Amino acid sequence: MRSAGSPLRSGLPMLQWGRAYDRSTFIDDGVAALIVTLMLIPQSLAYAMLAGLPAQAGLYASIAPLIAYAVFGSSRVLAVGPVAVISLMTATAVGTVAVPGTAEHAAAALTLAALSGAVLLLMGALRLGFVAHFLSHPVTSGFITASAILIAAGQLKTLLGVKAEGHTLPQILASVAAQWSSVHGLTLAVGVATTAFLFWARSGVRPALTRRGVSARSADLVAKAAPVGAIVLSTALSWGLDWQAAGLKVVGSIPAGMPPLTLPHWDADLWRALAMPAVLISIVGFVESVSVGQTLAARRRERIEPNRELVALGAANLSAALTGGFPVTGGFSRSVVNAEAGARTPAAGIFTAGGILLASLLLTPALRALPLATLAATIVVAVLSLADLGALKHTWQQGRSDFAALLVTLLSTLVIGVEIGLATGVLVSLALHLLRTSRPHIAEVGRVPGTEHFRNVLRHETVTHPQLLSLRVDESLYFANARNLEDHINAVVSRRPELVHVVLQCSAVNDIDASAQDSLQAIDQRLREGGMTLHLSEVKGPVMDRLTRSGFLKHLSGRVFLTHHQAVEALTPVGSASTQTAGASAPDSLQTH
Amino acid sequence: MRSAGSPLRSGLPMLQWGRAYDRSTFIDDGVAALIVTLMLIPQSLAYAMLAGLPAQAGLYASIAPLIAYAVFGSSRVLAVGPVAVISLMTATAVGTVAVPGTAEHAAAALTLAALSGAVLLLMGALRLGFVAHFLSHPVTSGFITASAILIAAGQLKTLLGVKAEGHTLPQILASVAAQWSSVHGLTLAVGVATTAFLFWARSGVRPALTRRGVSARSADLVAKAAPVGAIVLSTALSWGLDWQAAGLKVVGSIPAGMPPLTLPHWDADLWRALAMPAVLISIVGFVESVSVGQTLAARRRERIEPNRELVALGAANLSAALTGGFPVTGGFSRSVVNAEAGARTPAAGIFTAGGILLASLLLTPALRALPLATLAATIVVAVLSLADLGALKHTWQQGRSDFAALLVTLLSTLVIGVEIGLATGVLVSLALHLLRTSRPHIAEVGRVPGTEHFRNVLRHETVTHPQLLSLRVDESLYFANARNLEDHINAVVSRRPELVHVVLQCSAVNDIDASAQDSLQAIDQRLREGGMTLHLSEVKGPVMDRLTRSGFLKHLSGRVFLTHHQAVEALTPVGSASTQTAGASAPDSLQTH
Repeated sequence: MRSAGSPLRSGLPMLQWGRAYDRSTFIDDGVAALIVTLMLIPQSLAYAMLAGLPAQAGLYASIAPLIAYAVFGSSRVLAVGPVAVISLMTATAVGTVAVPGTAEHAAAALTLAALSGAVLLLMGALRLGFVAHFLSHPVTSGFITASAILIAAGQLKTLLGVKAEGHTLPQILASVAAQWSSVHGLTLAVGVATTAFLFWARSGVRPALTRRGVSARSADLVAKAAPVGAIVLSTALSWGLDWQAAGLKVVGSIPAGMPPLTLPHWDADLWRALAMPAVLISIVGFVESVSVGQTLAARRRERIEPNRELVALGAANLSAALTGGFPVTGGFSRSVVNAEAGARTPAAGIFTAGGILLASLLLTPALRALPLATLAATIVVAVLSLADLGALKHTWQQGRSDFAALLVTLLSTLVIGVEIGLATGVLVSLALHLLRTSRPHIAEVGRVPGTEHFRNVLRHETVTHPQLLSLRVDESLYFANARNLEDHINAVVSRRPELVHVVLQCSAVNDIDASAQDSLQAIDQRLREGGMTLHLSEVKGPVMDRLTRSGFLKHLSGRVFLTHHQAVEALTPVGSASTQTAGASAPDSLQTH
Repeated sequence: MRSAGSPLRSGLPMLQWGRAYDRSTFIDDGVAALIVTLMLIPQSLAYAMLAGLPAQAGLYASIAPLIAYAVFGSSRVLAVGPVAVISLMTATAVGTVAVPGTAEHAAAALTLAALSGAVLLLMGALRLGFVAHFLSHPVTSGFITASAILIAAGQLKTLLGVKAEGHTLPQILASVAAQWSSVHGLTLAVGVATTAFLFWARSGVRPALTRRGVSARSADLVAKAAPVGAIVLSTALSWGLDWQAAGLKVVGSIPAGMPPLTLPHWDADLWRALAMPAVLISIVGFVESVSVGQTLAARRRERIEPNRELVALGAANLSAALTGGFPVTGGFSRSVVNAEAGARTPAAGIFTAGGILLASLLLTPALRALPLATLAATIVVAVLSLADLGALKHTWQQGRSDFAALLVTLLSTLVIGVEIGLATGVLVSLALHLLRTSRPHIAEVGRVPGTEHFRNVLRHETVTHPQLLSLRVDESLYFANARNLEDHINAVVSRRPELVHVVLQCSAVNDIDASAQDSLQAIDQRLREGGMTLHLSEVKGPVMDRLTRSGFLKHLSGRVFLTHHQAVEALTPVGSASTQTAGASAPDSLQTH
């Protein structure tokens, strides 16, 4: 069922699309690359600032990783690079071992990228892609919303021109509030103006332009270029009016040139400190990237191979570590833009890398006067679309324990921090799942008159027999719920002295582990000592195989029946007493079914 | 379904059996108490030594706790007191904070008992008895076997008269091996002789006596009294021949008298250090006690109320903490003896407490010359019956992952230690369970010709349609397996371009959480974009309720069918192509069903 073969045996994806590459594909890929490049330049600078790194690190992280992904990745349109949540996690992790702005800080970010790359490659080699499945949607949703709020709050200090610190929402807000009197007016004005412009560009530009007869595609392009426009305009103003002299913080000098060749530090203490963050960053990045990739691939009936994606993202992160970058992954908005702009092969990613390389060679002197408040505004506008408060309501409708998992993740991430918040969310969601399956729904069933169907006696009008107890267990039986079944049967039996037979209908039992087999044996033993017999009905093939292999069936006091109806027919002599119970006619209680 | 009402609202069990108490019950309880007292005296002394405590602590731990349990407990025959595994865990936990034999050590044992009592009471108040369900049978079995081996190995030093230390098997064995040259001959002789005698008493005494015409009951009584005989005989020899002067270690002077009134230390550091061990001891003790209680209660069609047992064991441990004892729980062998000797009410426990009290008042001077090697032999013979190596084979037959959980628990307990070993076992068993459910069995099903039944196309001869894919998922859908289903459907769809309909048969799906709903929605969306439709069949009531409430069904591209047959009938026009496939006729592959 599962696809076999290693990523290497089935060949590099590049060899497939590379062979059929022609002029029209080249033009399509080139146009897409140009648009994505324009989008990536401000994002790269902003996410580098978010990660606490110099601006050029963002550009470097958008060159080699794109090429690495194009060679190894299985998605045709995924665009990798720095993304908001991973940059926040990088800032948090690296902030624990070095002071932002120092050389140690940048070196630690390289080490983190190298570790994350190694983790991803290892997971790919061991085919551990499934580990990401344990990050449930509510946990992911709560984590991303909390991260977006934390990121936006963290930009407040840059938008207000104050100094503030902290990695949790209460810390950040308290720190900003304490500095309220020293807000820098010009910085605030630039920040507010840019934020307002970018919000308007998101929703207002397209309709305004199309109303004036601009084609939808061009209007879209203009809207996408709005962040670039904001950067050009604010940089020009900042340079012309010498805002730096007026106390506005600017990007400052960025070294122009190729990405440097860098090597992560070999320092055991540093590696230990960053190991856990690297694992979390790898898993979060992988989940984000694969879900983007799958969504885009499905539209073309293509397929993402998760274990190959691990290898590709691992290579992308290792290349980031070797070329002055920081942890990267596949981003949602840039991948969608890439796909919508018409990219047809991963070559578009290589062309984008070329575009960013040109920018880092030629444009960096021009970015010297770029106000940091502009970048902060770019970040705030970008991440607030990630904060999905509607998911709270939707998840509430989907299920209470899912909602609880979301809320716990959201709050613990905001209040305790990103790493512990995420870990707490995963553990809570697992605990809630186990708790749910540890209390299986067990229904006493009776025959629906005139049929061979058996339904819950509390919900339906059924026929039952006083000497025969029919129970349906709606869960696989395993250690966490096996004793529950014991308790349940003990309780019923102690109330009904006239019982002779207990029949378990196993149609919903997909598995029976050792503890459950022991429990069934204990139930059987106790029933036998009380003069009763235990029977099973509708046992599935693999469960039957297990019970046979373990010898359970040899010792069972009763029999195994193919259908529950056959069991009841065989165990209740003709003419024996039967009771007709009228179940609650309206099944308004959700507890019974 | 679950029994409602707090333990207090339903009244003390004592009030029930106390009212009907009469002379014949008194005699039966008294006889049972006499036999259990004879059995408990050597056990109490031995387990105190095992816990690293003075001998009298064992006697004290067998007085007040028995009375507390008799008042609060729901089992009529359970006998509480010091038991082997809990004594080992006590020694390990207390050994980390104090040196055995010191006053601090005994005080820490009191604190541990108080904490354990508090944990049990809290669990009882919050009705958290279900927590114990997460200790699976293979983990319990591996843990108890490893503990028995550790306990027996730990007694080697006493049996050989050498000094040795360590809490893991390699440490203990290395330590004993290093002392090999200084083995004390007399100690070894006493130890070996007592061990041999006790082993013989276990199996040889009864047949030898019954062959000579002694009644089975009396022979049984003599066999049970063998440990007392060993103690009397070796104490007499030790006293008469002054073995202490010859270098044999003896119990030494035990203060005669009532149990002292003791108060646990109020020391935050001590409490922190003992908190985790207290939780583990509480859970292990609870599981052991409840499973003994349930086995004995079932024989009389009585019932154990697990949450009430938590309260009773909590009271027992608190009383142990207040009267110079150490952590206690319900023991298997003594409870069986109590039941078989004819105990009819918990009053037998109160009488036993009286017996042990008399012993601690009158017998202690006589125990002064009791050789420690005799006690060590008592322990070895008692615990080796706990080591259940047959469980390894049985669990292997019950299932591979159960076997893995047992083996991991066994080895990590032996090699790393009791607390980490147990915690590792629990985590591994949970991880294996989650791993199993994260890879659900998904079968493509087809109609068995001439029926309305749908079975696995790989196992059975079936009829399928090229435009319709029927999948049966044999697991509840939740976050850990939802993406697996996505991958599976993506893979099949990318191989079969002629597909128009995908129908999921949900008869074995007991729950669908938020992540799985999102996955189904993503699957639906992708199929729709590829020109296909997703349908469901045989959806259970509560799952249907969830899907309705969350709005999933409103957006579903296809329909929900009552039966899978109806779905296939409705979606394949009469006369459309169909394929008859011959499945593997012999279902020799266990992978498919």
